Amino acid sequence: MKTRVTELFGIEEPVIQGAMAWVANASLAAGVSAAGGLGIVAAGAAPVEWVEEQIEIVRSKTDKPFGVNVMLMNPNSDQIAQLLADKRVPVITTGAGDPGKYMAAWKEVGCKVAPVVASATLARRMERAGADAIIAEGMEAGGHIGQITTMTLIPAVRAAVSVPLIAAGGVADGRGMAAAMMLGAEGVQMGTRFLTIEECTIADAYKEKVLAAKDSDTLVTGQNSGHPVRQLKNRFARTAKHMESDASVTSEELEQFMAGSLRKAVVDGDVVNGSMMSGISACLVHERGTAADVIAEVIGEAEELLGLGAEKLIEMNARAGRVSAAHAE
Amino acid sequence: MKTRVTELFGIEEPVIQGAMAWVANASLAAGVSAAGGLGIVAAGAAPVEWVEEQIEIVRSKTDKPFGVNVMLMNPNSDQIAQLLADKRVPVITTGAGDPGKYMAAWKEVGCKVAPVVASATLARRMERAGADAIIAEGMEAGGHIGQITTMTLIPAVRAAVSVPLIAAGGVADGRGMAAAMMLGAEGVQMGTRFLTIEECTIADAYKEKVLAAKDSDTLVTGQNSGHPVRQLKNRFARTAKHMESDASVTSEELEQFMAGSLRKAVVDGDVVNGSMMSGISACLVHERGTAADVIAEVIGEAEELLGLGAEKLIEMNARAGRVSAAHAE
Repeated sequence: MKTRVTELFGIEEPVIQGAMAWVANASLAAGVSAAGGLGIVAAGAAPVEWVEEQIEIVRSKTDKPFGVNVMLMNPNSDQIAQLLADKRVPVITTGAGDPGKYMAAWKEVGCKVAPVVASATLARRMERAGADAIIAEGMEAGGHIGQITTMTLIPAVRAAVSVPLIAAGGVADGRGMAAAMMLGAEGVQMGTRFLTIEECTIADAYKEKVLAAKDSDTLVTGQNSGHPVRQLKNRFARTAKHMESDASVTSEELEQFMAGSLRKAVVDGDVVNGSMMSGISACLVHERGTAADVIAEVIGEAEELLGLGAEKLIEMNARAGRVSAAHAE
Repeated sequence: MKTRVTELFGIEEPVIQGAMAWVANASLAAGVSAAGGLGIVAAGAAPVEWVEEQIEIVRSKTDKPFGVNVMLMNPNSDQIAQLLADKRVPVITTGAGDPGKYMAAWKEVGCKVAPVVASATLARRMERAGADAIIAEGMEAGGHIGQITTMTLIPAVRAAVSVPLIAAGGVADGRGMAAAMMLGAEGVQMGTRFLTIEECTIADAYKEKVLAAKDSDTLVTGQNSGHPVRQLKNRFARTAKHMESDASVTSEELEQFMAGSLRKAVVDGDVVNGSMMSGISACLVHERGTAADVIAEVIGEAEELLGLGAEKLIEMNARAGRVSAAHAE
C-alpha cells in the first residue's frame, strides 16, 4: 500500500511499530523494518550507550529505514537527540514533550521527524515547528496515554494539519487500519499487536497475558496525577491504583513501589508484580507469528475491506457474527 | 443505506439517535424518526406520565418507528417497562442494568430490544437473554460511559455476537460512520451530533458550547466512584471533579452539588453551573441544521467514502489537510 507515509519514510507498507520502553529494542525494530514497515527503537530512559548499540544492531540486521523514539522529559534527552543526529537515524519519533529545540539539528542532517501527539492543538503546534508527519495516538493505546480516543482524535487532527497523518491507539488488525483510514489517516502505528511476535524479546509469560486479554482487561493508573498509563490488569496494577487513591500513601512510597516494574514484566516474566503495558487492542490479538506475518495480514485485510464497497461490506458484517467468536470467549 | 439494522427496526437509514436524559424528548425523537432514522425518547429519571405523554406526542408527529430508552437502575423502571409493553413501543433500548426480566413481556407484544453495552462480555450476555440487536458504546460518548473505546469495542463485540451491531461513541459524521462499519458495525447511534439540530429543544447557549468545543474540551467525572460521566468542561464539571478528589467532601455534599445540574444546562441554559453532557465528538460538530440534514450528510459521506476504494481514499486523505482546518482552530 502506497501513501504519503510510505513515500516520506521510504518504506513498503504504511505500518509503524510503536515505541515501547524496555520492549522496542533492535530485535523488534529490525524485524519490523526488514518486513517492510518502520521499526522503532524506544530510547525510553535507557543510557545513551544502549541506544547507540541498538542503532548499530538494527543497521547490522537490515539496510531498510528505521526510527528511534525519544522521550523528551528524560534527563538525557539532549544527549540522545545529539546521538540521533550524529548517527543520521532515518526517522525520529518523539513523545512526552516539545521537540522544537532539536528540530533544526535533526532536519539539517536529513532525519524525518514525527511527533506523537494526543490532541489536535499539539498536532498543529508540531506541524508549525517543522514536523514531517504526525502520529496521533488515542487513549486506547498502552503505556503513557492522553484523554482523547482514536475515533475522535484522528478526524480532529486530520482537519488541523496537512502533513501525513499516522493513527495510533486501538489498531491491531485490518479492520482497525481500514477504520483509521476512513477517519483520515495515511498509515497506522501499532504497539500491542507486535508484542507477541517472534522478533519481540519480552518474556513469554507476558505474551501469553496479551493473547488471553479481553476488552476489559486493561487498567489506567496515574489518572489523578495527570500521567495516565495503561497496562494489563494484574496484582501490580490493582495495587498501584489502590495506593494512588489512598491519601496516606506518599508519592515517594508509590514511586518506590513502581520502580523496576516494567523490567520485572518484560525481562523476568513476572506477570504478577510487573507492569505489563498494553493497549485495549490486546483483546484483538490472538496470534504470534512474525513481523512479516502481521504486516501482510493487516495490509491484506485493510485492502480487502477498503475495496469491498458499501454493499459487500454490509453483507460481510451481517455474516461476521460468530466467525471469530472463539477468540472472544 | 440498507443493513440488518434498517430491516430490524423498519427504518430507512441505519442511524439511531442516542438517548440523552432531559434532552431526548418527543421533539427530538419524532424529528429523527420522521427523517428516516430511529428517534429515541429517553425515559431517564422522568415520571411515567411524562414518558407516556412523549410517546403520544411522537405518534402524533410521525407514523414512523421510534424507540424509548429505559435506565434500568431507576426506581420506576418496572412501571416504565410495563408502559412500553402496553404502548407497544416499536423499539426499546436499555441502559445501566440487565433488562433480562422484562425481555419476555416486551418481545411478546413485538417490541424490538437493543441493549446499550460497554463490553463484549455484556454484549454476549444480552444476546443470550434475547436481545434483537446490540448497541455497543465506546467511552468517548457523552453522559454515563464505560471504559472501552469504540475503536476496540466494536471489533470485540462483532466477534462476540451475531445479532445486528450498532456502534455508538465518537461517531458524528460520515467518516465516523464509515470507520464504524469497517470495524464491523451495521449502523450507528449518535447523540452529540443531534444536540445542535433544530428539533433539539435544549437551550441555545448549550448548543453554542457544543459547536465551539475542541477535542480536549470534555471532562470525565465520577471515575473514582465507578460511575463515570462525560460532559463539556465548565465551572460545574471542574468543581465536581475537584470535590470528588477532596476527602473532606461527603458523598451527600457531592450529591447535593450535582442535583438539578442537567436541568440547569438543558432548560435554563446555564452553561456555567449546569452539566452539559457531551461526547468528545463535539469537536466534530460544526453545524446546526435539521435531523434530515444530519442523516443525509452522514449517510452521503459514509457511502462516498465506502465506495472510493483504497487508492482514491488515500488520495483524498493526502489532500484532506487544511480543508476543514478552520473548524479546528
